[in-house]
Amino acid sequence: MKRLRGIVPPLVTPLVGRDLLDVAGLERLIEHVLAGGVRGIFLLGTTGEAPSLSHRLRHELVQRACRIVNGRVPVLVGVTDTAFVESIALARRAADAGAHAVVLSAPYYFRADQPELAEYLEHIVPQLALPVFLYNIPSHTKVPFALETVRRALELPRVVGMKDSSGDLAYFRKLARLVKKKPGFTLLIGSETHIPQGKRAGAHGAVPSAANLVPRLFVDLYDAPSRDTQARVLRLQRTVFAVGRHPSSYLKGLKCALSLLGICDDFMAEPFARFRAPERARVKRHLIELGMYAE
Amino acid sequence: MKRLRGIVPPLVTPLVGRDLLDVAGLERLIEHVLAGGVRGIFLLGTTGEAPSLSHRLRHELVQRACRIVNGRVPVLVGVTDTAFVESIALARRAADAGAHAVVLSAPYYFRADQPELAEYLEHIVPQLALPVFLYNIPSHTKVPFALETVRRALELPRVVGMKDSSGDLAYFRKLARLVKKKPGFTLLIGSETHIPQGKRAGAHGAVPSAANLVPRLFVDLYDAPSRDTQARVLRLQRTVFAVGRHPSSYLKGLKCALSLLGICDDFMAEPFARFRAPERARVKRHLIELGMYAE
Amino acid sequence: MKRLRGIVPPLVTPLVGRDLLDVAGLERLIEHVLAGGVRGIFLLGTTGEAPSLSHRLRHELVQRACRIVNGRVPVLVGVTDTAFVESIALARRAADAGAHAVVLSAPYYFRADQPELAEYLEHIVPQLALPVFLYNIPSHTKVPFALETVRRALELPRVVGMKDSSGDLAYFRKLARLVKKKPGFTLLIGSETHIPQGKRAGAHGAVPSAANLVPRLFVDLYDAPSRDTQARVLRLQRTVFAVGRHPSSYLKGLKCALSLLGICDDFMAEPFARFRAPERARVKRHLIELGMYAE
Amino acid sequence: MKRLRGIVPPLVTPLVGRDLLDVAGLERLIEHVLAGGVRGIFLLGTTGEAPSLSHRLRHELVQRACRIVNGRVPVLVGVTDTAFVESIALARRAADAGAHAVVLSAPYYFRADQPELAEYLEHIVPQLALPVFLYNIPSHTKVPFALETVRRALELPRVVGMKDSSGDLAYFRKLARLVKKKPGFTLLIGSETHIPQGKRAGAHGAVPSAANLVPRLFVDLYDAPSRDTQARVLRLQRTVFAVGRHPSSYLKGLKCALSLLGICDDFMAEPFARFRAPERARVKRHLIELGMYAE
Repeated sequence: MKRLRGIVPPLVTPLVGRDLLDVAGLERLIEHVLAGGVRGIFLLGTTGEAPSLSHRLRHELVQRACRIVNGRVPVLVGVTDTAFVESIALARRAADAGAHAVVLSAPYYFRADQPELAEYLEHIVPQLALPVFLYNIPSHTKVPFALETVRRALELPRVVGMKDSSGDLAYFRKLARLVKKKPGFTLLIGSETHIPQGKRAGAHGAVPSAANLVPRLFVDLYDAPSRDTQARVLRLQRTVFAVGRHPSSYLKGLKCALSLLGICDDFMAEPFARFRAPERARVKRHLIELGMYAE
Repeated sequence: MKRLRGIVPPLVTPLVGRDLLDVAGLERLIEHVLAGGVRGIFLLGTTGEAPSLSHRLRHELVQRACRIVNGRVPVLVGVTDTAFVESIALARRAADAGAHAVVLSAPYYFRADQPELAEYLEHIVPQLALPVFLYNIPSHTKVPFALETVRRALELPRVVGMKDSSGDLAYFRKLARLVKKKPGFTLLIGSETHIPQGKRAGAHGAVPSAANLVPRLFVDLYDAPSRDTQARVLRLQRTVFAVGRHPSSYLKGLKCALSLLGICDDFMAEPFARFRAPERARVKRHLIELGMYAE
Repeated sequence: MKRLRGIVPPLVTPLVGRDLLDVAGLERLIEHVLAGGVRGIFLLGTTGEAPSLSHRLRHELVQRACRIVNGRVPVLVGVTDTAFVESIALARRAADAGAHAVVLSAPYYFRADQPELAEYLEHIVPQLALPVFLYNIPSHTKVPFALETVRRALELPRVVGMKDSSGDLAYFRKLARLVKKKPGFTLLIGSETHIPQGKRAGAHGAVPSAANLVPRLFVDLYDAPSRDTQARVLRLQRTVFAVGRHPSSYLKGLKCALSLLGICDDFMAEPFARFRAPERARVKRHLIELGMYAE
Repeated sequence: MKRLRGIVPPLVTPLVGRDLLDVAGLERLIEHVLAGGVRGIFLLGTTGEAPSLSHRLRHELVQRACRIVNGRVPVLVGVTDTAFVESIALARRAADAGAHAVVLSAPYYFRADQPELAEYLEHIVPQLALPVFLYNIPSHTKVPFALETVRRALELPRVVGMKDSSGDLAYFRKLARLVKKKPGFTLLIGSETHIPQGKRAGAHGAVPSAANLVPRLFVDLYDAPSRDTQARVLRLQRTVFAVGRHPSSYLKGLKCALSLLGICDDFMAEPFARFRAPERARVKRHLIELGMYAE
């Protein structure tokens, strides 16, 4: 697998019901981000609500998405699970469907200590049917990938990349120095507010949620950052993504905006629920003000 | 379902491999705790390593355990999952196998805010095929059941009990006052260091991990607490359960001791691993000193 | 569940790949047959290629179809399987999805003798989550439902109907006399060449495969049979459905015609495969001659 | 995989309930046949009641059996299913568990014509994760493997063997001549009444159900056939295996005898059921007369 470069959106999972994929919406969403110039697609990440989906639906999503993408860009598939056996099974299905790599975080119920986490990686990585990206997201897993753990994991040949969503730039800079030694390794920054700094520190690409909505804007921000693109990203974050009062609001705002633009349904898997009318109206107003929606 | 009273051990899941139940060990373990006088059995809790097990194995465990118990005491089955649909499915299988109730915690990847958690309960409880115990364990789920959320959940007729493993006695006392209004409601204390205090505060029973090893001791501690039983529990905690340096050591020590006593295998599901020789030797020495193991 | 009356098409399962439903095609197909005046829909029968589909896909189909039908007519779901446990599980999912009844044939690998078959029904029917239609199709299951077996099954309250696809009118007439004693029982004739005779013998409805293609024609044939409708059905059978040389040609011709009319894809699950170009051209020519297709 | 030679029993699946494996019985049964000198084990065949078992249980059986056998002899796993996708999935699990080959029959609901069957094999064989034995059993699948179909299948490198349970010696002799051209190919005769003739015709081994009960007798019959061994096999068939009146009696008698000898439980998956008391008494009397059971 060649090194990834550029924007790789963590794809929203379009749903029309608790266990029902929005198939037409998935097709529109994929075409939308591909038309925006993204360089890969990451399925079943945090933005994709992966842990909230049944295994059946995760499997269906991977099959359908790989078929729609049809080799135009690499497809990465999140396989993190608290159960080792389920991660292995999903990776196998991702390989069968034609995906290019899997993305693996720390198991997120039990709090493994770093030596336990390193050993876990040494056990699971050789059994995953595809090359592996590590995924650091301690806000959700409770457990970060300490640098020493990354160092051990880099010795596994199948570990070919890493996505850091810690939001900690100091950590990211040390990480960049560490992974530079592994040829062909892809380092992705997950935090969408730090893309230019991440790139300067050594990131090869970025994984911004908002690229589901405005892929071209993030491609521009990454390829040729200007004051204007930065300002536009900031404005989005302060408006569309600032509606609502729970930590889940970011994701709710994203799905709500995608639905207002006719791209896909905004149904959300429990424990979340889509915005109700008042929040939806606010998102709509913001989109109008930003010139993204015409009444 | 009648109110539970007394000791309900959160059963260890005996394994001989990553996806392979120790069937003979399960039978010995269940007979061991029943012989010790426990008043119920709780499968697939944190002590049961539930989130680390494949869905196939969880299903098999529920079937086999219910068959072995064969109605002698009520069986409670943990169905917490990050995916709503998987919780529903496991509850259905628990009902089919003859279990008496399910135990449900907060989804543990996304951090639901309290109104979201309350709404989640309102959605899922009516779809679970058995009466429901709530399970408060914020150390693992990141999300506590706030009292206001419990208050809303109590209005659901199928919510018949709650287990609190927060370790927060002040919270527990408020909880006890709150649930007292619901007739027949069972309140269980999960923290094994607070059993006498929990009982005084209004607990109807307790769910101590160490009761897998010494069920009779905990039954005595609960039914007729004496200085001696308390001292013996304390000594266990300071010896057998104090070997090792990770937070997972408690569970490792428990499985190690059960294996030394010939009750079941000490294989653990990833991300954990059984104690290696030095720790095992220390656990053995402690068991000898406590008179629980003869060389 | 009220007695069914009229045409209940055994729905084709639209596929775009081996394990991939043609979701848009499914929606068009359901709207097509509903617009034709059918009085129910039978999913996952022989025409639906049920045994060739993964359990995952069967589950998905039931969910999506029930959602599309949305209560406009009753939905029946085939749950026949060689494994008792899998039939139970699929029936549960059908009930959860909002289906109205399940359809059950004899297990089709082992050749059960009639007393074994009767006992099988006595075991499984009470465990199925919905009312049950028996489905007699000895050409595929090797085992017919002997009248004595039907007599025993009628004593099970949940057995509310039967579909006979034996093609044996003498058997059907005896069956009609037998089931007349059970109030509210629905008797359906599966053989599409015997619809008028079946109706005269006591059928309440019919389940013709070709109704996927021409629902209105079969509704007319059933409600107000005329020489003309009979002639038109016969012409279809001698043209569109007579292309190809394997017994599977009927089903291949049906999917091919549906695909030519733009209703759904003609992908077939193994061991079958869609018509290749020469057969497809013949089907097309027949449709043109019948005035069903304009070039 | 080296050519198999000798007796490969089609293992009975010991059950204690509809979806519950008799784990201790499985261990005793495997040790029993290994002690008898068998040269391989065939799981999930017709004798193993495979089509009647849930996919979950099939998976569990493969895992446990491979672990017990632990490489002492090759393990073959039946993966025949009406659904292509389920066969692929089971083969993958067999490979993961350490099995050596899979065994594949024709899909058994739809009656594929020979060109369809040949194409089916060309599609599925390359996707099965292990070398493949074909399994000809038209009594159950309705569809034989015609010689022309076998000829096409032999061109697939992964097809390494075949088991013929047609009971048709003329066919078997032609088959033997045909497969002789493929180096290393293993030909097994499934019909236990034709073992010596099969060996003379070119079989490398045999797969007799009764070898579950008397493995050594069949090993002797195969390695050094004598009048005495043949007479003893015949006597068994005329006594133990002649109790009961359904075609399923052979399998019921086998499980009944295994249970009387204390090897495993005689629970049977639906649509069959274990012998009741009168038949059981007759089997017992026969075993006593044969000197196999002491009261």
